[in-house]
Formats: sequence, structure tokens, C-alpha cells
Amino acid sequence: MTSIPITDPDDARVAPYRAVRERDVVGRGERFVAEGEVVLRLLIEGGRGAPSAHAPESLLIAENRLDALGDLLTKLPPEIPVYAAGQVVMDAVVGFHIHRGVLAIARRAQPETAAELLARLPAKALVVALVGVANHDNVGGIFRNAAAFGADAVLLDETSCDPLYRKAIRVSVGASLVLPFARGGSGHALLDALAAGGFRTLALSPAGTHDIAAVPPAPRTALLLGAEGPGLPADLMARTTTARVPMATGFDSLNVATTSGIALYELTCATP
Amino acid sequence: MTSIPITDPDDARVAPYRAVRERDVVGRGERFVAEGEVVLRLLIEGGRGAPSAHAPESLLIAENRLDALGDLLTKLPPEIPVYAAGQVVMDAVVGFHIHRGVLAIARRAQPETAAELLARLPAKALVVALVGVANHDNVGGIFRNAAAFGADAVLLDETSCDPLYRKAIRVSVGASLVLPFARGGSGHALLDALAAGGFRTLALSPAGTHDIAAVPPAPRTALLLGAEGPGLPADLMARTTTARVPMATGFDSLNVATTSGIALYELTCATP
Repeated sequence: MTSIPITDPDDARVAPYRAVRERDVVGRGERFVAEGEVVLRLLIEGGRGAPSAHAPESLLIAENRLDALGDLLTKLPPEIPVYAAGQVVMDAVVGFHIHRGVLAIARRAQPETAAELLARLPAKALVVALVGVANHDNVGGIFRNAAAFGADAVLLDETSCDPLYRKAIRVSVGASLVLPFARGGSGHALLDALAAGGFRTLALSPAGTHDIAAVPPAPRTALLLGAEGPGLPADLMARTTTARVPMATGFDSLNVATTSGIALYELTCATP
Repeated sequence: MTSIPITDPDDARVAPYRAVRERDVVGRGERFVAEGEVVLRLLIEGGRGAPSAHAPESLLIAENRLDALGDLLTKLPPEIPVYAAGQVVMDAVVGFHIHRGVLAIARRAQPETAAELLARLPAKALVVALVGVANHDNVGGIFRNAAAFGADAVLLDETSCDPLYRKAIRVSVGASLVLPFARGGSGHALLDALAAGGFRTLALSPAGTHDIAAVPPAPRTALLLGAEGPGLPADLMARTTTARVPMATGFDSLNVATTSGIALYELTCATP
């Protein structure tokens, strides 16, 4: 691997890295920005026993990070350019201070539908389904929890945010690069696909009927979560089994990502 | 309640509201900034069956929010000034757009030591103790979870962040205003105070010895959490019972606030 020195912030070869703060995805959504060594490692090496479905197109690395990343960079296909710049030039290209000194542009995997994704999961599977979760921190946190508890995939309706937004990737600690997901369609379409795939869908809500610890297990389970504040629409709740995380009275408020972590923990780890 | 109109951003009466983005606390740390209706309500009315320990000194409200907040404002002591400004003037005072249109300056309660706080808790008590948790989002999220699961108090060492920082209050959804806390001293001093108070301290770490679900209950329990990344110092772990949240192999990474939520859930709610 030979890096390509960049000394001019206006160099056309690093144009995709320009103003990434303002742009969450790059190039009409086919490409995305990954930052930091942990995320870059997942992008190149994959994780959870599977290669990353997304392909790096180029890297922009601070000169003083090149040596430390040497072992990883040798695993890149030789046709992938590695641009190296001093911190000042790098910050000038990107538009703010990249203190991690590691950026990549990657091309996203061919999208698949919820039905296609569910069809390739094992007979015993756990899926997280999101409706209206538009907050990047929450989507990133939910991916991180889904990976930590071994969920098989994440489904998102069209109003939930793209898990490959820069901040969502970062908060997920790269989980959104290695956990299969499908995004699109309405909440009802997600429930249709889950039902067709033989999934029992469990909608989480403070108003849920069952204590999350008291829901009988099913071989294929989907956890359905909505946005904080509005929560899940009533017509979606009506189509599912509903469950709640029990809380102290007077302050029954949990963040949706935390709720996902507790529910995944309960379904996968808690002693029966 | 009569509001006091403010038409000049340089009006000396609203000087404490100037440039709050850059200042997390106001006036050498004796005062803090609260924002949003939910937080203001907790500040004035208290929560969890207890009054807020902190006293509002003044309010700055967007004119178009005054009517909706009328019932709450009548509960203010009459000597507390309520400044009302148009959105443009309000934004000019504060230095950025306050889309919630609700700010307050409050004086913090007289601080107490960990020992003083523990001494006034009931015989059966659950406490969260933080060492080196300097991230405002994480401290806020931990307070939110502690309140949701009915913990009695939070202890923080001197290197953890102030729970009354603006962002920590916001992320806690006001829990840091109503949940008693004590901050200061070293991690060892916290453990000393907990031991003297008869608490069994349970340190959470991916390297913990016991599964969190398998720890026998104790009447007074403290959950000890460290910063993500470095985790808890080994010399503190050596003084405690250590526990872990079991996770899938290959991605054993949970956010510290999520970890607190799962552990609090397991200790307070999970079926035995």
C-alpha cells in the first residue's frame, strides 16, 4: 500500500470529502462517510463473522496515523487509493477538525427489501424493526445494542433515518456497517413482511399489555420500536403483541435506544 | 404572575442568559441553566413525590409560550421575575435559536457529601455511583434511567461531569433536578462512603465475574460504573463484587448509559 500525498485542500481527488459535516451521505446516497479507526476496521475486515457488505472507495488519513494503521491498510484491495494529508490540509478539506484523523468514502451495498432480508435469516431469528425513529443517535444506539445482543437484522420504515448517516454509524460504533438492514416502505408494510416471514412481532410501548419478561418465546421474534414522544401508531400496535418495560411510577420515561437494549437483554440473556 | 417585557438584548436584567451555549453553568457554578417546559415543570413543581432541591431565580420565556405556560407560572413565588421576549430578542440574548422558548436560571441546592446523602436514604436503597463518566450525554442518560427505575440517589466522583450542566439536564429529561446526588472526591472515597453506609457495591464491567442476573440481592446496593473505553480502574474493581451484562460474542460493546439501564432493570424489575 502506497499512500498518495495531498497538499492542496482543493485537490479534486479528495472532493468527496469536502464539507462532510453538512452532508450525511455523499453522491445521491450511494456513498457514505465512515470515520475513525474502529469503524474503518469493520468496513475493511467486516465483523460478527461476516465481511462488510459495503465497499470502501477511498481513504483520507492524517499523515501521523499512517504508521499505526499500517496492518489494516495492507488488507485493502490495491486499487483503493489511500490519500494522506497533514492535519491542517485534512481539516481544510473536511471543513472541521477531524481529531480521529481517519475518514473513508464507501459505496453502500445493493439495498434489499425487508422480505428479501427476512427470507435469508435462520429459522430461529431475532430482528429489530423501527418505525419513525428519525434521530441519528437513537438509530445508532439501537444498532449498537442489536449487535451486542446478537440480533440478526434491523428493519426500518421509510420515515426512520438512514443507518449509514455519518453520526448513526459513529454512535453505532460501526454496527450499522456489519448488521444487515433493510429500509423503506410503511410500518404496515414492515408488519406484513414480518408476518409473511413467520415472525411474532412484539411492539414495545409504555402502554404495552405484557411485561417484557413475561412474553412467551417464539422462534422468530421481531421487536418493534417507535419514536420517543409520539411512540408507535395505534393502528400498528393493534396488529401486534404489545409489551412494556416496567418502571418506577412518576418517571416512566426511557430513551428508545435504552429500551431496545433492555428488551434485547431480556429476550436473549435474562435467566428464565 | 406578571411578566416583564424585554426588548433590548443588552438589557442587564437578562445578563445571566447571555452566551449560555458556551457556558454550561453560570456564575461560578452556583447557578445553572434549565431549558424546556418539561424541565421547568420539574424545577418548579418537583417530581417523584419530592420538591426540587434547586430554586429558580428567574425565567426567560418566548412571548408566544406565555399563555401555554400560564398554569405553571402561577406556581412561582411572586418574587421570581419572569422575563418575556420576542423570539428574535431571546435568540439574540442567548446566542443561538432557543426553539423551545423556555429558559430558567436556578440556584443549585447546598451540596452535600456522599456520606451525608447516603445517611438519609432508607434502609433498603439503590444507588448508582459513577467514576470518570465525563460525557454529558452519558451522565444525563444515567440519571434518566436511575429515575425510571426508582433508584434513590446518584454519587459521582470529582472527575465525572456535573449533572447540572445544561446538556446533562436536558438528556436526563430533568431527572438530574429531582434525583438526589453528591459529587466530589475520588472513586476510593466513594467506595469508602458506600461501605460505611452498609452498601454492597456491584462494579459493572465486561470483565465482571458474575452475570448481572445471578448476583444475590442485598438491601442496600450500589451500581458502580466507569467511563466507556478505559472502564473502571482495576484497584476499584478489586474492592467490589464485579458483574457483567452478558452479550453476543464478537461485539461486546454497550454504551455506559444503556448498561446502567439494563443493570437497573435487572436489579429492580426482572422476574426472579
